[in-house]
Amino acid sequence: MLSVKRPEEVIEIINTEFSHIAGEEFVPLTKSLGRVLARDITADEYVPDFDRSTVDGYAVFSRDTFGCTEAIPAILPVVGEILMGQAAEKDLNPGECYAIPTGGAVPKGADSVVMIEYTEDYGDGTIGIMKSTAPGMNMIFRGDDVYPGKTVLKKGRIISSQDIGAMASMGITEVPVTKKLTVGIISTGDELIHHSQKPIGGQIRDVNSPMLESMLEAFGVNTVNYGIIIDDEELLEKKVNEAVSECDVVILSGGSSVGVKDAACRIIESFGTILLHGIAIKPGKPTILGKTNDQKALVGLPGHPVAAYFITKLFVLPLLAKLETREMKTYTISAKVTENISANHGRAQYQACHFFEKDGELFAQPIRGKSGLITSLAGADGYFEIPRDCEGLRQYETIQIIVSTGE
Amino acid sequence: MLSVKRPEEVIEIINTEFSHIAGEEFVPLTKSLGRVLARDITADEYVPDFDRSTVDGYAVFSRDTFGCTEAIPAILPVVGEILMGQAAEKDLNPGECYAIPTGGAVPKGADSVVMIEYTEDYGDGTIGIMKSTAPGMNMIFRGDDVYPGKTVLKKGRIISSQDIGAMASMGITEVPVTKKLTVGIISTGDELIHHSQKPIGGQIRDVNSPMLESMLEAFGVNTVNYGIIIDDEELLEKKVNEAVSECDVVILSGGSSVGVKDAACRIIESFGTILLHGIAIKPGKPTILGKTNDQKALVGLPGHPVAAYFITKLFVLPLLAKLETREMKTYTISAKVTENISANHGRAQYQACHFFEKDGELFAQPIRGKSGLITSLAGADGYFEIPRDCEGLRQYETIQIIVSTGE
Repeated sequence: MLSVKRPEEVIEIINTEFSHIAGEEFVPLTKSLGRVLARDITADEYVPDFDRSTVDGYAVFSRDTFGCTEAIPAILPVVGEILMGQAAEKDLNPGECYAIPTGGAVPKGADSVVMIEYTEDYGDGTIGIMKSTAPGMNMIFRGDDVYPGKTVLKKGRIISSQDIGAMASMGITEVPVTKKLTVGIISTGDELIHHSQKPIGGQIRDVNSPMLESMLEAFGVNTVNYGIIIDDEELLEKKVNEAVSECDVVILSGGSSVGVKDAACRIIESFGTILLHGIAIKPGKPTILGKTNDQKALVGLPGHPVAAYFITKLFVLPLLAKLETREMKTYTISAKVTENISANHGRAQYQACHFFEKDGELFAQPIRGKSGLITSLAGADGYFEIPRDCEGLRQYETIQIIVSTGE
Repeated sequence: MLSVKRPEEVIEIINTEFSHIAGEEFVPLTKSLGRVLARDITADEYVPDFDRSTVDGYAVFSRDTFGCTEAIPAILPVVGEILMGQAAEKDLNPGECYAIPTGGAVPKGADSVVMIEYTEDYGDGTIGIMKSTAPGMNMIFRGDDVYPGKTVLKKGRIISSQDIGAMASMGITEVPVTKKLTVGIISTGDELIHHSQKPIGGQIRDVNSPMLESMLEAFGVNTVNYGIIIDDEELLEKKVNEAVSECDVVILSGGSSVGVKDAACRIIESFGTILLHGIAIKPGKPTILGKTNDQKALVGLPGHPVAAYFITKLFVLPLLAKLETREMKTYTISAKVTENISANHGRAQYQACHFFEKDGELFAQPIRGKSGLITSLAGADGYFEIPRDCEGLRQYETIQIIVSTGE
């Protein structure tokens, strides 16, 4: 009999027992948002590829402006005008200047740009410069943004829109990403009916399938819904077999009665090894994690939707991240809890909440409800943990809202 | 000439000048993730629709157990077994009990469930109960989760996976959501080339189109990319006209030279009213916001990708949220900045950063780079504001990372 594990032990088991299994593929840059970067992105050219002006003005040799003032301007002939997107027709010689727009390519020879505000156009092909300028002033140099060999994005990162911008600037049209994992979802229970049906007798609608499907799709994996299987071990085993052959991870959800739980356990064991049976958290204790002989993960989730939600959030998503070497950062935000909460001894407790800011302080308002009631999650903004050794929280005590990036 | 506005004035202008224009449609529950709820979701039935046991055990009249102990158990005949998903064949009479699994429907007459752990099966059709139970113990009552008339989700909310779970429990198969807005993106500038091309002379790749497209798609609107238009006022006006007729919002991005900025301004004005010209933030000052006579929004974004990013994040997304009555909550998280930062007087300054947790404290590490360099955003985890009156930040000073929900 495997002992019940604490949350940090579960994460440890995930990290030691599983490893990268996701493949790699290329997708067009504009389709790469939210995907997991499969390799470091390293530049192989300069961005910008030319010295660029950051103001409207005149490109000059800075030495030609040294010591000039409003009273004694430096007078220079304008030998040409830089057009946007075009290189200068010829190089700049000392004693000359070029008119240049913001974003224009500074001509060879020039080492500085004088803002138009500090010049006067005499109308005879010359200008006066009223203020001296230093080398490099009002310019971005070739390669200031990116140069060959510079690592711009790290493998494992979830690609954001600003990352897409950076890759566009580097001319990347195809992005190496990890192939999406496929996760199979099987709901079990004689009492379950599809959510479109009307329950009779002791039936209840299957909440977990659509909820898990959307959680996993939002995380960025493909899901296969294997439907609702009645409490028949043979049937269930057949369905798990089908799912294991088609998916990277298979989630069995439900089966709240003892017999079904035992069946799920036996089936998961028959495919490989059971890594844990029971997690010391509330809600969510009756969780099973196993792996097949070819590194696929099998998860037995509790039937209660709230428990299934937290187990997925806390452990299944990190498991998927491990399988695709995705970078996930979890951190916490301090907030004050709006009311007293009693806690369970010996088990970390997770509580969904609304949060709101008032007078510059963040407050977390727990959403109450008996365990297993899905409406205790509906409308939630986030959740916090009450540690296992905590006997409860007093009103306005500070708690830590858990936030993850990479989901 | 319109004066330059402070960020809070811009949000005020958005909220007073624009109103809901998004239509409404129904989508299947499993396709509703991330969409904006167009109406309150109110229950019209009970969930669960029956009194449900939360443990494996025996359904009883609690009175029959009063005063029983391990020494003097209450002995009751087991008149039947509740099967998952099925109602009891007959009601329970005083002095009897029903075997019942977790999740089973408590038979009429019973008011409590005794956990199997506190019973002994005598093998002759009777059991002994060792511990008295109170009415309602180990049960969830009909409608405990949801009852007719209860509002479960509020209009304007972004539908999350837990919301999908709640709606599944209520039997909702089609969800009322706002129709996705359509946003047109036009890039202008003679220097711009598509990101797949190799720049020559003073050309640069168009970063803003792919970046904005992905930001807006991630936010949940449809985008139409009208490509790159050269600096020709007539051509540009024609393209804006086409975009305005096809979209709810049109974004003109780029045109960093003075002439193009003026042209963008004239064109936006020709379609209706200019609401603001210039926002007192860094980066991002040269921003134009206008509206057409039929409530469509026109935005002129700065050409610098970093400025375009922050203006979109800070003002364009709230504008879109206003047009579809989407609930967005912005709040801040305290963190310590890892290094000194100098700030611009008179303008709020936005700074992208990495963040990490160390010894239970959150740190924000600014990503440095000259203004306009897209790599100063690549790889960022978030950003913070340096207020307009702040002269700079010292190392380890506390700053506020800005987080929004509803994006």
